Amino acid sequence: MAERAYFDWNATAPLRQAAREAMQAAFSLVGNPSSVHAEGRAARNLIEHAREHVGLLVGARPAEVTFTASGTEANALALSPAIETGVEKKPRGRLFISAIEHPSVHAGGRFPREAIGYLPVDADGRVKLGALADALAHPSAAASRPLVSIMLANNETGVIQPVAEAAAIVHAAGGLLHVDAVQAAGRIACDIGALGADLMTLSAHKIGGLKGVGALVRKSEDIHFAEPLIRGGGQERGLRAGTENVAGIAAFGAAALAARGQLACEGAHMLALRSLLEEGLRAITPQAVIFGAAAARLPNTTLFALPGMKAETAVIAFDLEGVAVSSGAACSSGKVQPSHVLAAMEVSPPLTRAAVRVSLGWTTTKADIERFLNAWRKLASALSKGHGIAA
Amino acid sequence: MAERAYFDWNATAPLRQAAREAMQAAFSLVGNPSSVHAEGRAARNLIEHAREHVGLLVGARPAEVTFTASGTEANALALSPAIETGVEKKPRGRLFISAIEHPSVHAGGRFPREAIGYLPVDADGRVKLGALADALAHPSAAASRPLVSIMLANNETGVIQPVAEAAAIVHAAGGLLHVDAVQAAGRIACDIGALGADLMTLSAHKIGGLKGVGALVRKSEDIHFAEPLIRGGGQERGLRAGTENVAGIAAFGAAALAARGQLACEGAHMLALRSLLEEGLRAITPQAVIFGAAAARLPNTTLFALPGMKAETAVIAFDLEGVAVSSGAACSSGKVQPSHVLAAMEVSPPLTRAAVRVSLGWTTTKADIERFLNAWRKLASALSKGHGIAA
Repeated sequence: MAERAYFDWNATAPLRQAAREAMQAAFSLVGNPSSVHAEGRAARNLIEHAREHVGLLVGARPAEVTFTASGTEANALALSPAIETGVEKKPRGRLFISAIEHPSVHAGGRFPREAIGYLPVDADGRVKLGALADALAHPSAAASRPLVSIMLANNETGVIQPVAEAAAIVHAAGGLLHVDAVQAAGRIACDIGALGADLMTLSAHKIGGLKGVGALVRKSEDIHFAEPLIRGGGQERGLRAGTENVAGIAAFGAAALAARGQLACEGAHMLALRSLLEEGLRAITPQAVIFGAAAARLPNTTLFALPGMKAETAVIAFDLEGVAVSSGAACSSGKVQPSHVLAAMEVSPPLTRAAVRVSLGWTTTKADIERFLNAWRKLASALSKGHGIAA
Repeated sequence: MAERAYFDWNATAPLRQAAREAMQAAFSLVGNPSSVHAEGRAARNLIEHAREHVGLLVGARPAEVTFTASGTEANALALSPAIETGVEKKPRGRLFISAIEHPSVHAGGRFPREAIGYLPVDADGRVKLGALADALAHPSAAASRPLVSIMLANNETGVIQPVAEAAAIVHAAGGLLHVDAVQAAGRIACDIGALGADLMTLSAHKIGGLKGVGALVRKSEDIHFAEPLIRGGGQERGLRAGTENVAGIAAFGAAALAARGQLACEGAHMLALRSLLEEGLRAITPQAVIFGAAAARLPNTTLFALPGMKAETAVIAFDLEGVAVSSGAACSSGKVQPSHVLAAMEVSPPLTRAAVRVSLGWTTTKADIERFLNAWRKLASALSKGHGIAA
């Protein structure tokens, strides 16, 4: 059995072997992709090759892929009032986001705070399509040519959102749809056309690439940003200045190729192990709550709580048993904040404070699941005796 | 003799061995630095260790270093009207930049175009301190609590700017000084305190780290940005959201440590070879012009021109001879644009179009210089006969 079991794949995944090899190959190249000499052209080729593979992962053409330094930066670039489509150049006046978006979408990009509307979710953590339709039907929203941002799968619960249905509503109202697919990519199908998304955010390190690389994918080259977020040189067709992360982008391409090729088999692998995990969890603690269990979820994510437990303490106890789990989103400053996702699902505050996220990946093994369940048995027993991990 | 000679170090440098090893070590870690479990803490440690070494390179404390994805992003973050110092929170109304700044400074960050003033340079490419003093003495400038941005060394000419003298003028006028030290770091001393800079930009790949990593260094933690450029999670003390490029940052730290330790010896090495190169150049073509030769320059950069030559053609001819040189800044979209640096130095347009940049680094050898001079002899001869590389 491995020394430790890693169950925090929604925070970050290990580097895939193919991505590591792509990095190694890139290391032997010197050359700035903007340079015209042979060294520069070789670096440029690596990037354009990767752009093709990242595009293929979501059914997009290479020219529709803009590399960024993170999913967060891609979200910040996407959420701009100055998105142009074709000849129409009037700025977008309103942004609507679901109440369960990642903090980088919650921040609202370059929309002023007062221009942002929030869409509620149901008790299973799915955005309410009726509320979306109502919000867009309001005369002020309709006139604003709104931008809507709904994630494909939630990072905490793994719940898959009704994106294609939302796209139809958004487009009927003259709006554009941005989809944060950071958690979904590599775990379920993410075809930008099939989903009806106009913009889609990806992150390399969630699919086995490197931390520090992301992408914003556009449905078509006609979608343009009048004001890039980072200006200077003309890299990324003027949409994002700065010397490209050549090695990281090469690794992203390799990871995307692997993720696309192995999507079905990795998805089935994760789902089988996650089922084992949830069966074991329910057997040990029948009173445990699994959030979003009635909804379609990613095959790799379980967010659960045991009444009376304190998540922060449980995470530390699991860690001491060699099991890495999380108490909600990892993407923060280390501050303990109650989950805005569970709050939006109207989960009670005590149960929210008990929520522990377990997320699996392509190298997760049955032995890892056993290690998790053994640790959980121990913790649940301590909890039932009133020590250790009680709130 | 090596297959090719690389003379485009101002565009990008090869990865240092120490940086490569730091990357390899980082690859074996999985874990998001924001996670509290052992895997997360190990990733966090790599970043904080690197932060210490990057700080030491410029005489700053770790908490004063904010990692970004490029020098361009660091410049974009720095050039904000909402820079706060201590208790004073009034926005800065004017930005003054030298006429020879990198495009990412020229873009002006988040200052509106009409709030930006330009500072002229002399014929040797040095910013005119008298013009700076005059600009800041104007009542409207003085009232605006200006931000001034002057690079430490120019990317095209290598000319070192009188930054410490400029700092005294800026501070006397109640302003703040940002210094883009991307080209200077690792080549000459860059102590933020000694230079009197309030903010300083660094890029990892110019000192032997990875492309896709940079840093903004603050003179003190009292300097704060009310509006980060990229918002979301609380990473980098709230100054820059997004999962950190852990492996790239680790490599940056290793490169900074190596660059600091070898500064004197690498500087002397580059200067000796650059002298050989310029002597050879003058011997082969006495009519060649070396720009900024009368000024203090980086030890690694030569920007030269031969009247009648066309730089784009010369770069291609050099490339075919196995020599990678550049026609000005590499950091662009591949469009051929006349150098704004030489224009600011009032070089004639025909001579500007002839300018070729040769930049050396720590692995440059005497054999590389010979290869360059052999290629130059061939090209100059073809040119004198009126074929090939004439404008």
